[in-house]
Amino acid sequence: MAHQLLQFQQLQSTVDVAFWAELGRLKLDTLRLSEDAQPITGFYSASNSSDYPASLTLDGQSLESQAPHRKGLHSIPGSLLNVNTFERFKAAQEQASQHLQKASQQIWQDILSGRAQEDPGRLLNFLLLSYADLKHFRYYYWFAFPVLKPPEPFRCKTLASLEEGLGADLAASTAQACAGWLGGISPASASEQGAAPVWLIRVADTGVRCQPLSTWQELQGLDGRVILGIADHGNLPGNPGWLLRNSLLLAAVRFGVTELEVACIRLRRAQPCVQRSLLLSVTLPHKSEGDWASFMPTPTGWELNARGKLGPRMMNLGPSMDPRQLAESAVDLNLKLMRWRAAPALDTARLAATKCLLLGAGTLGCAVARVLLGWGIRHITFVDSGRVAYSNPVRQSLYEFKDCLEGGQPKAEAAAEALRRIFPSVQASGLQFSIPMPGHPLSDAEIPKAEADAKQLDSLMEEHDVTFLLMDTRESRWLPTLLGAAKNKLVINAALGFDSFLVLRHGAGPSGPHHSANPREKADPAGMRLGCYFCNDVVAPLDSTVDRTLEQQCTVARPGLAGIAGSLAVEVCCGALQHPQGVRAPAAQHDAAASSATGHKDAVLPLGPVPHMIRGQLGGGFAQQCLVGSAFRQCTACSWAVVEQYRQQGWKFILEALQDPHALEDLTGLTELHNAAAALMMDASEEEEDENDSLLKGNDQTSAAAGDDWTEL
Amino acid sequence: MAHQLLQFQQLQSTVDVAFWAELGRLKLDTLRLSEDAQPITGFYSASNSSDYPASLTLDGQSLESQAPHRKGLHSIPGSLLNVNTFERFKAAQEQASQHLQKASQQIWQDILSGRAQEDPGRLLNFLLLSYADLKHFRYYYWFAFPVLKPPEPFRCKTLASLEEGLGADLAASTAQACAGWLGGISPASASEQGAAPVWLIRVADTGVRCQPLSTWQELQGLDGRVILGIADHGNLPGNPGWLLRNSLLLAAVRFGVTELEVACIRLRRAQPCVQRSLLLSVTLPHKSEGDWASFMPTPTGWELNARGKLGPRMMNLGPSMDPRQLAESAVDLNLKLMRWRAAPALDTARLAATKCLLLGAGTLGCAVARVLLGWGIRHITFVDSGRVAYSNPVRQSLYEFKDCLEGGQPKAEAAAEALRRIFPSVQASGLQFSIPMPGHPLSDAEIPKAEADAKQLDSLMEEHDVTFLLMDTRESRWLPTLLGAAKNKLVINAALGFDSFLVLRHGAGPSGPHHSANPREKADPAGMRLGCYFCNDVVAPLDSTVDRTLEQQCTVARPGLAGIAGSLAVEVCCGALQHPQGVRAPAAQHDAAASSATGHKDAVLPLGPVPHMIRGQLGGGFAQQCLVGSAFRQCTACSWAVVEQYRQQGWKFILEALQDPHALEDLTGLTELHNAAAALMMDASEEEEDENDSLLKGNDQTSAAAGDDWTEL
Repeated sequence: MAHQLLQFQQLQSTVDVAFWAELGRLKLDTLRLSEDAQPITGFYSASNSSDYPASLTLDGQSLESQAPHRKGLHSIPGSLLNVNTFERFKAAQEQASQHLQKASQQIWQDILSGRAQEDPGRLLNFLLLSYADLKHFRYYYWFAFPVLKPPEPFRCKTLASLEEGLGADLAASTAQACAGWLGGISPASASEQGAAPVWLIRVADTGVRCQPLSTWQELQGLDGRVILGIADHGNLPGNPGWLLRNSLLLAAVRFGVTELEVACIRLRRAQPCVQRSLLLSVTLPHKSEGDWASFMPTPTGWELNARGKLGPRMMNLGPSMDPRQLAESAVDLNLKLMRWRAAPALDTARLAATKCLLLGAGTLGCAVARVLLGWGIRHITFVDSGRVAYSNPVRQSLYEFKDCLEGGQPKAEAAAEALRRIFPSVQASGLQFSIPMPGHPLSDAEIPKAEADAKQLDSLMEEHDVTFLLMDTRESRWLPTLLGAAKNKLVINAALGFDSFLVLRHGAGPSGPHHSANPREKADPAGMRLGCYFCNDVVAPLDSTVDRTLEQQCTVARPGLAGIAGSLAVEVCCGALQHPQGVRAPAAQHDAAASSATGHKDAVLPLGPVPHMIRGQLGGGFAQQCLVGSAFRQCTACSWAVVEQYRQQGWKFILEALQDPHALEDLTGLTELHNAAAALMMDASEEEEDENDSLLKGNDQTSAAAGDDWTEL
Repeated sequence: MAHQLLQFQQLQSTVDVAFWAELGRLKLDTLRLSEDAQPITGFYSASNSSDYPASLTLDGQSLESQAPHRKGLHSIPGSLLNVNTFERFKAAQEQASQHLQKASQQIWQDILSGRAQEDPGRLLNFLLLSYADLKHFRYYYWFAFPVLKPPEPFRCKTLASLEEGLGADLAASTAQACAGWLGGISPASASEQGAAPVWLIRVADTGVRCQPLSTWQELQGLDGRVILGIADHGNLPGNPGWLLRNSLLLAAVRFGVTELEVACIRLRRAQPCVQRSLLLSVTLPHKSEGDWASFMPTPTGWELNARGKLGPRMMNLGPSMDPRQLAESAVDLNLKLMRWRAAPALDTARLAATKCLLLGAGTLGCAVARVLLGWGIRHITFVDSGRVAYSNPVRQSLYEFKDCLEGGQPKAEAAAEALRRIFPSVQASGLQFSIPMPGHPLSDAEIPKAEADAKQLDSLMEEHDVTFLLMDTRESRWLPTLLGAAKNKLVINAALGFDSFLVLRHGAGPSGPHHSANPREKADPAGMRLGCYFCNDVVAPLDSTVDRTLEQQCTVARPGLAGIAGSLAVEVCCGALQHPQGVRAPAAQHDAAASSATGHKDAVLPLGPVPHMIRGQLGGGFAQQCLVGSAFRQCTACSWAVVEQYRQQGWKFILEALQDPHALEDLTGLTELHNAAAALMMDASEEEEDENDSLLKGNDQTSAAAGDDWTEL
């Protein structure tokens, strides 16, 4: 009677969510566009239940280069082939036989060379083909557990439970020995990968001992039985598990035997179970060493999918994730993807840690906050003293009709609330107060509130990394400009006219009385301290809100301007944040026509060189220019004299400037300059004086178009 | 015993909400920045109740240049001084005595000259000083009813009810005659302004008759009594109303009498009432004609406010208005304010009537829709086949976290819903379907759906005035480009790269096979038919979505780009809509450096000249350029051959192009061009061929940076 054909129970894979999460991170942060095969580690244990088989598991540690030894688990080496596109994944499926062939060849070489005997995990080398659709939290994958078809099938002479096959006593001794092996008690069993999943059991008079596979030759000629032990993932009573196949081929090739006893060790309550474990006597094909060397076994081994067919599986993590966490991952994804190709040096962590203070929550404030969110900035504070009016929502992108009802919500808090509706993980807050302004004299009763407001602004700018000036008056920008210079913090300024805009990053604070180019000197831009919003003025800021007609109050601007200026303001901000010199980053030096960057080592600037000031207009044909200007030594906001005065006198100095802006002109020496200029101008025509007068208006509607003293690049 | 000093009951004003609404409209649409005095008309009737006086009323017709005669009401001429700012209003209060002086002088002149006798309404000439804070729906105002102080006070000899004064019978006849006068039965009473509020009552044997004031001289020497009749707004039993004062002065000056009988006619149930009406005998100051001419009476007459003090009142219409209507007014306000100074020729009605179709509701679609709202466009339709993903809200400004839950809302409808939340009066809708694309061949089963989609797109573009192409693939822009050319409709295109963008308005459709410049010819831009998105290609659009890596799928772009490109796209659109040539508007011709517009009569372009194409980038220093290019005679999307083929074959042609884009190349003669080029290029280096290959990629990530054949301006 012919021996029964030995059939094996398929191995199944289980992939933990943590594996996919790690793979996503690895792909995003490290692999990026690489499709190189990655070493991974699978884990399995012998079957512990008669109801279901054990499976090969990938988890959060499977991608670690040195997967740790984990008690009770066998580490199996594998290869991950993660491709970049779904099309490549489909193509890879079509090339499945090639991939499998390659993996099988490796195993066959390891068997022939003896490496597998030294390290039996290699017998189980597996393959994972995958495509991570990180945008949709979907992972497409297909496992192969390659097995090599022997020249003739393995046949089974006898198959019984370990208890029946060895008798109760011997079975118990064997189980105990195997428990030691599997538990890593025997030093020989514990490799770096934990207990080897295949080993030898020597049954001699002296007892039962487990030994590494590599000791086969030593045992020949000694007395006793030698049984091949294997940690068996199968749970069927009549079939061993899939992983035994390559081990039997190894035995045929390396041991040169045609018959072999095999103990398929299975567990109950994590201990080898004599009832569930199998003892088989197997016949193996025979060939000479030379014949084996020229033999090429046919591989097989792609895992069946859930429908029992050859084909990939898909894991959709979306439904199982906390929606808030999904949103966080999704948003980070977009940013990290920039590092794959477009901006490999981009420091997204730096952006995520940046705290932004937005002074003004109107058209510009809303636009800026939205682009900051897009850049992954998570900490945004608004300051605005107003309430949401009915005309706001169509232009101010964080408000809705409902915010206008009942007198209008306070803008700052409504804006923060909107950010939370958009992205729940944002840390947004809104504060309702006014920024004290020079030229708006205070009554005695108003002074304590103004003092508190000024001090709150000082604390806020201290706590935040960047301050955006997005207000609708010129003079409200004075105090934060001064504070930015005193604290040497990044300050970004944006202002709108009817069809023009201005975006400007302030330069670093002054380090001494002469830390600036000479007044008005158009010096080498690379070395200069860059100017602030007030550096171009020769008068202190005045009240520009008095006598404003309706269209001046309502900031009548072409609706597209806020989107353009707000976006540019954030891009300038992020460019400076990514610049190694930060607030001291020199102005981009580029020829507007040729748009070729020069002067800086752009390679180390993830987002390229950063302009000092951008002026644009829509009316005359959509022109845009980058300008640069040095800090003015007599500036009423950022000069050494002003900053020092604030450092020494604090609120006292601010109050003086608020009550009488000419104090600033006296302090900075502008008064003297005026007198000298007046003496020179005695003969100037009235027309020219009118033009000078227009400087005095100081309204943002006109100031966006000002700045004619800046150097055009 | 001295006669009693005659005291008068103050006149009060009542201003109907309709007056303020009309004033707002007039200010916004017509007056704009003008502060010129406007003629207005007040209305009053005699007092009709003993409980309260009648008041001078302004209503919706008070601002009409020819206020209609209204039965039972006397029309009183007035002057409106509506100032531009609150500061001006405060200043005007301070100058109150000057204003009053001026108005009183007018009355005095009218008395002296006899004009007031001809037209007694002039005696009551009033003044309204106002400031309309349209942004907050608040109206500040102050009425003056100027009265002239006589050289000596008027004194009262007797004062009784009409019934007591005249006796029951005569009083009844008098009341009846006055009823006729007031009701306009007597032709003499009815001027263009209705019944004159002051008249003469002649009591003779022949009966009681009412006559105009101008007949005084005629009546002298005739028998009978002549009583001055006045429609009296007062309700007090012992005092006539305020308006009598100037009439008494007129009598003193023009009649030259020192005593006068006066009937102050008051009503009950709208008829003269003999019990409520008063009969007074008054002593008047006496002067010679010459003395009167040199006399200058002191004026008085500012109305007291609600607290009984001299000072203005404020009307806040906000709380009484429907919030939705408030939002509409507020939004219109901002647009109309542009016409005050910045863009007087702006046709806001044209914008409000424009219907916009947005293909794509992603980063660009959201940004574009928001700026359209800002421009007062009220009809917006989105088309998008996708659903809101977790990564969207931080970059796509119409979505919130909640839209991502449960698999994500369909984008198009979610975007429309957001617009309604922002501005309830918008007409927004969203349609979820895909635009058929060349190079994405269809299976037989997919064809009917694609046909329906193509036809729906055709209908939508027919119904809308402007179509925006805001999708994330190049080839999905082909069909709407073709449809736009066939329908000769405005098509605006925007596309993003990682740090660059392209905004382009397509030219008009072809009017014949040769309606375009020669291929690639850089001809006079003013006369050329402008190119479309595909005019720069020498190959038909292909499937660019296959094999896209994750960062290509996710449109990895610097977050600020969408705001810039979306805003520019809308500004280009509005510029073209406001251009008299619309879709045929020539490209703005400007020197990027000088930004001076030339070539067009910019004066008639409310928003200035409109560029054909704007390319910008952030990476190399924030450069932006305007380019222009002519339509390509062999363009696969907008050439005559393609448009004609679509007109003749409709869907049949589209299907052919979808299934095999090379059909387009055959049709347009590009195949021939390729063959000719290939023959020439036999010797070209491989490197050059590679460059040509890059054109084939057709991915929007790269195409934003393409367009090197465009002429830079």
